[in-house]
Parts: sequence; C-alpha cells; structure tokens
Amino acid sequence: MNFTGKNILSVDQFDRHSIEQIFEIADRMLPYARRQKRTRVLDGAILGNLFFEASTRTRISFGTAFNLLGGEVRETTGMESSALAKGESLYDTARVLSSYSDIIAMRHPKSGSVAEFAEGSRVPVINGGDGANEHPTQALLDLYTIKKELAYHGHDIDGMHICMMGDLKFGRTVHSLSRLLSMYKNIRFTLIAPHELAMPDSILNVIEQAGHQVTITDQVIGISDADIVYQTRIQQERFTSPQEANQYRGKFRLNSEIYTKHYKPNTVIMHPLPRDSRAEANELDNDLNQNPNLAIFRQADNGVLIRMALFALTLGVTDQVDRHECEVNWYSDKRNV
Amino acid sequence: MNFTGKNILSVDQFDRHSIEQIFEIADRMLPYARRQKRTRVLDGAILGNLFFEASTRTRISFGTAFNLLGGEVRETTGMESSALAKGESLYDTARVLSSYSDIIAMRHPKSGSVAEFAEGSRVPVINGGDGANEHPTQALLDLYTIKKELAYHGHDIDGMHICMMGDLKFGRTVHSLSRLLSMYKNIRFTLIAPHELAMPDSILNVIEQAGHQVTITDQVIGISDADIVYQTRIQQERFTSPQEANQYRGKFRLNSEIYTKHYKPNTVIMHPLPRDSRAEANELDNDLNQNPNLAIFRQADNGVLIRMALFALTLGVTDQVDRHECEVNWYSDKRNV
Amino acid sequence: MNFTGKNILSVDQFDRHSIEQIFEIADRMLPYARRQKRTRVLDGAILGNLFFEASTRTRISFGTAFNLLGGEVRETTGMESSALAKGESLYDTARVLSSYSDIIAMRHPKSGSVAEFAEGSRVPVINGGDGANEHPTQALLDLYTIKKELAYHGHDIDGMHICMMGDLKFGRTVHSLSRLLSMYKNIRFTLIAPHELAMPDSILNVIEQAGHQVTITDQVIGISDADIVYQTRIQQERFTSPQEANQYRGKFRLNSEIYTKHYKPNTVIMHPLPRDSRAEANELDNDLNQNPNLAIFRQADNGVLIRMALFALTLGVTDQVDRHECEVNWYSDKRNV
Repeated sequence: MNFTGKNILSVDQFDRHSIEQIFEIADRMLPYARRQKRTRVLDGAILGNLFFEASTRTRISFGTAFNLLGGEVRETTGMESSALAKGESLYDTARVLSSYSDIIAMRHPKSGSVAEFAEGSRVPVINGGDGANEHPTQALLDLYTIKKELAYHGHDIDGMHICMMGDLKFGRTVHSLSRLLSMYKNIRFTLIAPHELAMPDSILNVIEQAGHQVTITDQVIGISDADIVYQTRIQQERFTSPQEANQYRGKFRLNSEIYTKHYKPNTVIMHPLPRDSRAEANELDNDLNQNPNLAIFRQADNGVLIRMALFALTLGVTDQVDRHECEVNWYSDKRNV
Repeated sequence: MNFTGKNILSVDQFDRHSIEQIFEIADRMLPYARRQKRTRVLDGAILGNLFFEASTRTRISFGTAFNLLGGEVRETTGMESSALAKGESLYDTARVLSSYSDIIAMRHPKSGSVAEFAEGSRVPVINGGDGANEHPTQALLDLYTIKKELAYHGHDIDGMHICMMGDLKFGRTVHSLSRLLSMYKNIRFTLIAPHELAMPDSILNVIEQAGHQVTITDQVIGISDADIVYQTRIQQERFTSPQEANQYRGKFRLNSEIYTKHYKPNTVIMHPLPRDSRAEANELDNDLNQNPNLAIFRQADNGVLIRMALFALTLGVTDQVDRHECEVNWYSDKRNV
Repeated sequence: MNFTGKNILSVDQFDRHSIEQIFEIADRMLPYARRQKRTRVLDGAILGNLFFEASTRTRISFGTAFNLLGGEVRETTGMESSALAKGESLYDTARVLSSYSDIIAMRHPKSGSVAEFAEGSRVPVINGGDGANEHPTQALLDLYTIKKELAYHGHDIDGMHICMMGDLKFGRTVHSLSRLLSMYKNIRFTLIAPHELAMPDSILNVIEQAGHQVTITDQVIGISDADIVYQTRIQQERFTSPQEANQYRGKFRLNSEIYTKHYKPNTVIMHPLPRDSRAEANELDNDLNQNPNLAIFRQADNGVLIRMALFALTLGVTDQVDRHECEVNWYSDKRNV
C-alpha cells in the first residue's frame, strides 16, 4: 500500500501486508526514539495536533513523534474555544485548519467526526480517536507490542493464545485489536468478562469468520497457556450500584498472586492505560510493576514508534530518514533503556 | 513606513502606501505557505502567542505563520491561569512576558488592552483582537483578499462596488474593513442590514468624508453589479425573541438561488468566518461551496500570508527570507493547491 | 557537583559551591537571552513542560529557556484532561510521559508530588513548584538576583542586610530563599510581618543555627541600612474580615514615600511577582516603577538564565553551548536592554 498523502482513519483500511509495512518502518524508528540517533527529515513541516477532546498522553505522543522527526507542532485542546461551538460545520473547520499545517492528528468525541473532517481537509488526517468508534494508532501499537513481545520469546502472532479480560463491551481498544488480529492465522481468543460487559457480536463475527477459536466465559479459567493477557478497566458507572461494580471488579483483577496461579511464567501483561490504581478499582496491581512480563510501559513507548512510522509514511519520507541524520549533543538516559 | 520594531495595533496606523508594502511582502510569502519553498529566516526567534481570550484559528494562524518563517512559538490560552486574574496590571504582565520572546501576538477581551500591554512590552506587539475594538490582521487579510480576487477578474479596488450584509452594527470586521477601504478611491458601498443592526455613524462618517458613495437599505436590492458581497452573521441574542431573529436572518441569507437571482455571475463572496451552518442561522449556505467565487477559505489562507508579512516586516527580515531558503523534503498537497 | 542526569527537586540538594556553579553558567547564558548570540546546542531535544497546576509565566519561562538553547517543547496545562484524574498513579504517569521527552519541568498542586513523579521518570525532572512545598528555580533566581544587584553596588551576599516583609508565614519563596541564604555568612535578617503571618520556627531555626542575626518585628523599623527589601503579598483570605486585612495591608505597603523615608537611597526592591495592583492590596506601588533599584523585572529576566543554566547542566552541555553558536538574523530590542 502506498501511504503517501493518505488519511489514517480506521483499522479497516489495512491488510496484513500494509500492517507489516508500518511495523517495519516503526522498527527503523527505534534508534531515533532512543536518542542513539537523530534526524531532521521533517524539518520545517508542521503538525496540526487538534485534540477537540482532551487527552494528555495521546496528544503529547503524537507531538513528540513529530518532533523526533524534526517537525514543528501547532496544537489545540478542548472544544470551548473552537468555532465548532458557534455552529461551524466540520467541513469549514477542516478547510480552514488544514491550511495551517502539513498533516493533522485529530481527536474528537463524536463517532465518525474525524472521517467527516478529513473530507474537508487539504492535508492527510490521522485519527487520534473519534468517540466510541476508532483509535487506530492505539490498535496498531497494541498489535506491534504483541508482535515484539512474542518475538522476544521466539513466537509469532499466528497460532498464539490471547486472553482479553474486563470490560469487553465498551472497551474500544479490544474491539480494534480483535479486528486487526483477525487478519492473522489460528489465534485462540479467551474472552473473560462479566455477562453485562461481554464482547459484542459484531466483533465476535469478525473473529469467527476469520476462522479463529473463541472461548467466552465469565470465569478466570482456561488461560494457563495464554501468551498474552490484555487487561482492561471495568468502570463503576456500567453497573447499577457501587457494590455490584466492586464485586465484578474484584473478580477480574490481576495481581502477582493471581498471575502466578493462573498463567504460565512468561505470559505478557498488557493494558491500554491509564490503569486505575485506586483501591476500589485496581484492575492491574502495582505488585506486578517489577515483573519483566509487564509490557504496559513498552506499549506507550511503542506508540511513539507507530506514530513516527505513520508520519513518515503519509509524508513520503521513509527513505530519507537516515539521510537527514545528525548528532545527538546532549545527555540522554534513553540510549541505555 | 519602516515597520522594524513597530507595534501593529490598529488599522489607523497605516496609510495606503504602507498597506501596499504589507501586501507586496505577503505576495512574496505565497511559495513558502504553499510549500513550494521553505525558509529558516526566523530560526531561533520566539513568538509569544498570548491569547488571553481563546481563539483556535487566529491563534494557530499566527503560530503557523511564525513556524513557516522558521521560528518557535510559546503560547498561552485563556485567562484563568494568568496573573491578570490575581490583580496584576497589564504593564507588569507585559514587562515580564515580553522578556520571554522576540515578538508578541496578543488577543484580549478588553478594548484597548493590547495597546496598554504594548506600553510595557520590550518587544513588538501585534494585536490579534482586543474585544470590540480592533482586529487589524483580519481587516488586512480581508482587504488583501479583495485586492487579489478583483485582480483575478482584471479589476482594481479603486472604483469597485462592495455590498456588506447582515450585522453591520456589532461586526468588528466590517468596521475595520470600511476604514481601510476609505483610503482607496471612488468605492460604492451598499450596506444591507436590519435597521437595528445598521452601520454606526462613526464609520459612515469616515466613508463619506473620503468621498465614497453609500447606499443604506434593509432590502436585498441594488447589488446586481456588486464586485464583492461581504456577508456576516446575525446573532440571535441581538433581538428580543428567537422569532424576530429568525425573521431577520431569513431575509439576509445568501444561498445559490439568491446569489443567482441578485448578483452578477462573478461577484466574489466573502465572510469573516466562522459561518453558522445551523438551520436557524445559515447565513451563507453550503450549496455555494462549489461556487468558484466563494472566497471564504482563500481569506483564511491569506491570513497566514498577511501574518507572515507582518512578522517579517516588524522583525526586519524581508530582504533575507529568500537567502535562508532550504529544501522541502516531505510530501505536500499544498504545492498544487 | 555533577548535575548531568540529576533531578532538581529541592533547594536542600545544593551546597554553596553547587549554587555558585549554577550561577556561573547562568552568567554565560546572558548574551543568548539578550539575543547578542544564538546557540543550537539542544537542537532536537524535547522538554516535557508538564504544568498540572496552571502557571502562565513559570511555564513560559521554562519553555523559552529551552527554546533559547535550541530545543523543542511539548506541554500540558491543568489536570482535567489528565489521566491522574482517572485514578492513575503518579508513578504510571511518570513512566509514560517521561518516554516522550528528554527532560521534564513539572508543576503540581500537591506537596511532594514532583519527587514522587521523579521516582517513575526515566529522564531528569526539574521541580517547577509542588504546592506549598518547594519552587527551587524561584529561590535560585531570587538569590542570583541578590548576588547580581549587590555586585552592581560593589557588595557581596556575605555580610548583607535583607529585610523580608509581608506574609512570611505562607510565602513559599521567602522560606526557600532563607534556606539558601543560610549557606552564606553573617547575614542580617529583618523580618517584618503581622504576628499572624510571622516566619515559621522551622525556617528561623535554619537561619539561626547557621549563625545569622535575626530581628523579628511587626513594625517597619530598623531597615535604614538594608541592602535588599523583599516584599510579598498579604492575601485577604488570611484574615477574618476584609477590614482587618486592609488594616494590615496598609501598614506593610511599600511606595515611593515610604521607601524614601525608611530606606537608604540604593536599597534593592524585590518581589516574587505577580504584585497585586488593585487599590485594596497594592503592596508595591507603581510609583516605584521608574526607580532604578526596583529589581522585580530583572528577577523575571534572571529566571530565564537560571532555567537555561539548569537545562544545560542536567543535560550535560555546558561546554558545548558556544560551540553551537549561530547568527541572529532578526531585529531584536533585547540586544540593547
């Protein structure tokens, strides 16, 4: 797939080959993100980082990825100061704001809004999350993390066993990840969730039509050979009372004791972050922080690589990144991460 | 006029010659804004982009213009986090914040506040809008758009016929534009507004004393040879009831049918944006979006050129822009706009 | 002290020698801040400017200092959009956000939070203020200002007489400054405050154990040979009624008449800013604005130098700043400040 000048709106626009293309470029970004090398390939380019719905980490991750390639960032956060609040159409907003940058990363609370914006935009648009709909860079970074973590253990995505746990109904990340995984072969999905928060049929259909094996349960069982456990948050507001919520949350928690009891020694632990560390939620306990299989912060790191890759691909500079390499002058811990 | 080191506070500080100077520099900015060329002339310079009143597009337009010349941007949005809320004088704020940048673009809700700030500032200040008072870069981009659109049709500003329509009482942009146009010759103004929202006498005096011809009406008539129609928003809160507002808004709308009926085929359509596309307002219909005479998005584009020109002029680098030219490495649609 | 890779969390981590180190580097930053020279030593480095508590001037001062060394800035302001509000631990936030930058400047409303964040951070963290606890860069810029102002008059910090006035109980800046000054020799402190707002014993102990001379009073007396008067704000909410507050505030004001009556002709006037210029507060009158001993805006200027010095030290580039010098192309008033 030729990404140059294209929008990145949905995981549905990729096939397995184009995903592998993105991952190959992401691999090549690692020395730049770790500060072993530096490039100015996007020197002078401007990212419009338009977060009509606030999100500190996704916003900064996009901005950092662009800076790491040498570009500049212009930003907006929230909706109040926006003309959208004064009755302006997304088309108009897009026509105007897209004249201020060379590429746009956008988040917006409304499903479908980023695609609608892209219709009016004169520059490529990358979806940074549009409500309950899509968050394709999160899905790609999750899949990329799975690939790298499994490779570390000598395994492939094809044939693996993944356990998804918690709120599988409202968790946008597990939906998109499931659709991406469906492009691979012979995967076993174990989906552990309270009945009220089970994986929607629409996603189950995609998985099953691709020929994968699915086990649906509300018990923490059958996962002793899981390669990945992908934990999510259960939010209290999904239940009729705090008591009911707490009962469910207690049952689907993951901590060192449960990990040791239910999983094989090197099952990789993932979570879309942020994890809720308050006592009443605590779906992923801090006592796992020193466990080398806890991949949650490597997920965040990989997010920068994926976003760098997408910028380099859509702006057509993948072959020039190394040619614009320059010296790193300053002290950096990251060279030794 | 020598702009180096000067503040840009009001349209009143310009004469026709200095306006032409700005426009000549703006013309030279076009290849940089379109990404056919790139310059680093302001490399290392810092813009203080101080929006004490939030405004996404004007703020980003200033920031982008500075980036396009190679400079860096430090920003603030809104008033809450500001020391102004703790009783600090604008003089103190100016003395402190102006030590953090090489030039300042500022918006503030209070009339006269930007000029007051400029008294304390140690660096040039560009007014990005001070309440009901002035928004000189908007007026300049409107006039620049008129000049370019008319030139496209082989006409001059001198001798043209402009129709201004909608809320001419509270619309800051039509006031400033009228004052700028008054510096030109033999212009016909047709001012169409409900009686309650008529152009103020102070502006009418400026126009008439400069010898231009003015027609005041609340009917959409007499505009069959207008070169420009400058449409504005009528806000509901100006009327005693929504019913009354809707009646007026309906009467002063512009859409394809009305355009075809009342105007000559290549009358240029302008609007300060944002346009309100909600059904109850809809002063400029989306059915005109494909009309090549709709200049509203070219206005926004021209805003970047005008702001680049003002930065280059006040920082004294107009002769050096080309000397610091460098390669554009990345893919850009804008080269072919 | 070797600063490379270190956090800057508290004034307690310095001794007199390390403070002098910082000040020596700050001196060398002056031509860059004044735009007589320009450096790109941090070109490509990224500052994470994380202001979980909003503060326009401190935030911009950090960002500007980083830009002046050639680096890029990614920012966040306020807490609402932050994952901290969703129950994320500071440790998690730190692990994630520190992967997006090469160094972090952070402000947060909670005492101790910046140190807690630094535990999880993979890059050096500079405390930009953590609630009532510490604001070390403010303390350093205050001390640096004292040193430079006294040097201008041919004096040293050792042996000087400083008068601190106003709210000495809640004023974080006078606490930190007192602790830094205690590292010097034979200082006379005159502490003038209403009884309710007297300097806490914990700070008095530090001063007295270092062998300095302290006079505590609620009268504006005994200061005719003061080298420095450090004025602070008295906030109305510290008192039971506005009337009581006004009575105290009136008594501890500083204006031209009081200055002339009580102080020697070249006593240096300082204030942490912002000063409250509303009539009911007005602790430092505008009629002193033209007095050459008013050092309050030089304090703000010095803040940029101190922050540049700390960035250069923690990123290990103090010896390379000059080597990456490049031309200043644009007009700047600051060359002649």
